[in-house]
Amino acid sequence: MSEIKDKSIEIFLDELASKQATPGGGSAAAVMGAQAAALLSMVCNLTIGKPKYAEVELDMQALLAESEALRQTLLGMIKADVDVFDKLMACYGLAKETDADKAQRSQQIQIMLREATEVPLACAKACAKTIALSRVAAEKGNLGVISDAGVAVMAGYAGLKSAALNVYINTSSLKDREFAEAKLAELEDVMQGMDLEVEAIYQLVKDKL
Amino acid sequence: MSEIKDKSIEIFLDELASKQATPGGGSAAAVMGAQAAALLSMVCNLTIGKPKYAEVELDMQALLAESEALRQTLLGMIKADVDVFDKLMACYGLAKETDADKAQRSQQIQIMLREATEVPLACAKACAKTIALSRVAAEKGNLGVISDAGVAVMAGYAGLKSAALNVYINTSSLKDREFAEAKLAELEDVMQGMDLEVEAIYQLVKDKL
Repeated sequence: MSEIKDKSIEIFLDELASKQATPGGGSAAAVMGAQAAALLSMVCNLTIGKPKYAEVELDMQALLAESEALRQTLLGMIKADVDVFDKLMACYGLAKETDADKAQRSQQIQIMLREATEVPLACAKACAKTIALSRVAAEKGNLGVISDAGVAVMAGYAGLKSAALNVYINTSSLKDREFAEAKLAELEDVMQGMDLEVEAIYQLVKDKL
Repeated sequence: MSEIKDKSIEIFLDELASKQATPGGGSAAAVMGAQAAALLSMVCNLTIGKPKYAEVELDMQALLAESEALRQTLLGMIKADVDVFDKLMACYGLAKETDADKAQRSQQIQIMLREATEVPLACAKACAKTIALSRVAAEKGNLGVISDAGVAVMAGYAGLKSAALNVYINTSSLKDREFAEAKLAELEDVMQGMDLEVEAIYQLVKDKL
């Protein structure tokens, strides 16, 4: 079966809408984050090399390197979400006839729940980075495409809040509460102040239109 | 050239990131709205037919019909955004040597700016509908996939705020201020209270996880 990133947008949406469990919200979150990163790259690509923006040339080149790296990371996360979900479902499907089966199954589920927490947490962190970079693009990018920095910040924010939901789900089933609380604290750190920052960047862009 | 919806996600993101003017934020907004609609359909498809959710069966069937119609509408808007942008650029490229040329060019630009206002306004309205439907999905959908209703509301919100930016841009260049103000008032109506509603729906989903 081909990877989601290689499927057409229409087919991806068909599969998202279907009763198949994957792809689901986790992949959608990564796609939104990747769109944010791509739009930041677009702003950079349409700013770099323009005499009018020579002063911010180096900043834009640095931003482009970061946004392109994030785009690749987030592209990979579309598949990572499906993979970890499928592996988790496989654990839930393990035999539970004997007490030994049950203990084994429960242990495997708990191991996989850790990975199913780490994957969306990493997606949330990558999306948060696109938000931080959106500020630079909004402040310094070519005014002719500044609205794309505004779309980037909203896409990154949607990806962040969406990925967070998957962290909440999977930590809630974790028996290792120390690990769960540590991951929730990491997420809390990432989300801290983001609502206001996103609104501020959006307003900054809107005021430039 | 093939339509954007027929391109792979990876190619779409490559083109979004490139220095080509299209696809840009307007298409990204429509893709996010279509993802919202698709996720709502997924929640419906995984709720309908389950004995446990028999009580909301009819609501979910009605919701599915609406979300699927919205998905098709938003899928079409990915291309509509590119088309209107290209037509607007063609108008800006018209001859401006004589006074008659200039008058003709200016008139054509103004005509096309109206269309370039209507297209993202329609996208904003469709995205706002996905937000309204997300509340139904969040309240009545299968708890096992309720997080997808939360992702849907964030995707719809990102699409709404992104499409709004394109309405702001194009109305700002319109000389017919009466038309421009009327369209901005329509947009204002659509956006009214949405920040709080999105936060409320997200919280509703989070509390169910």
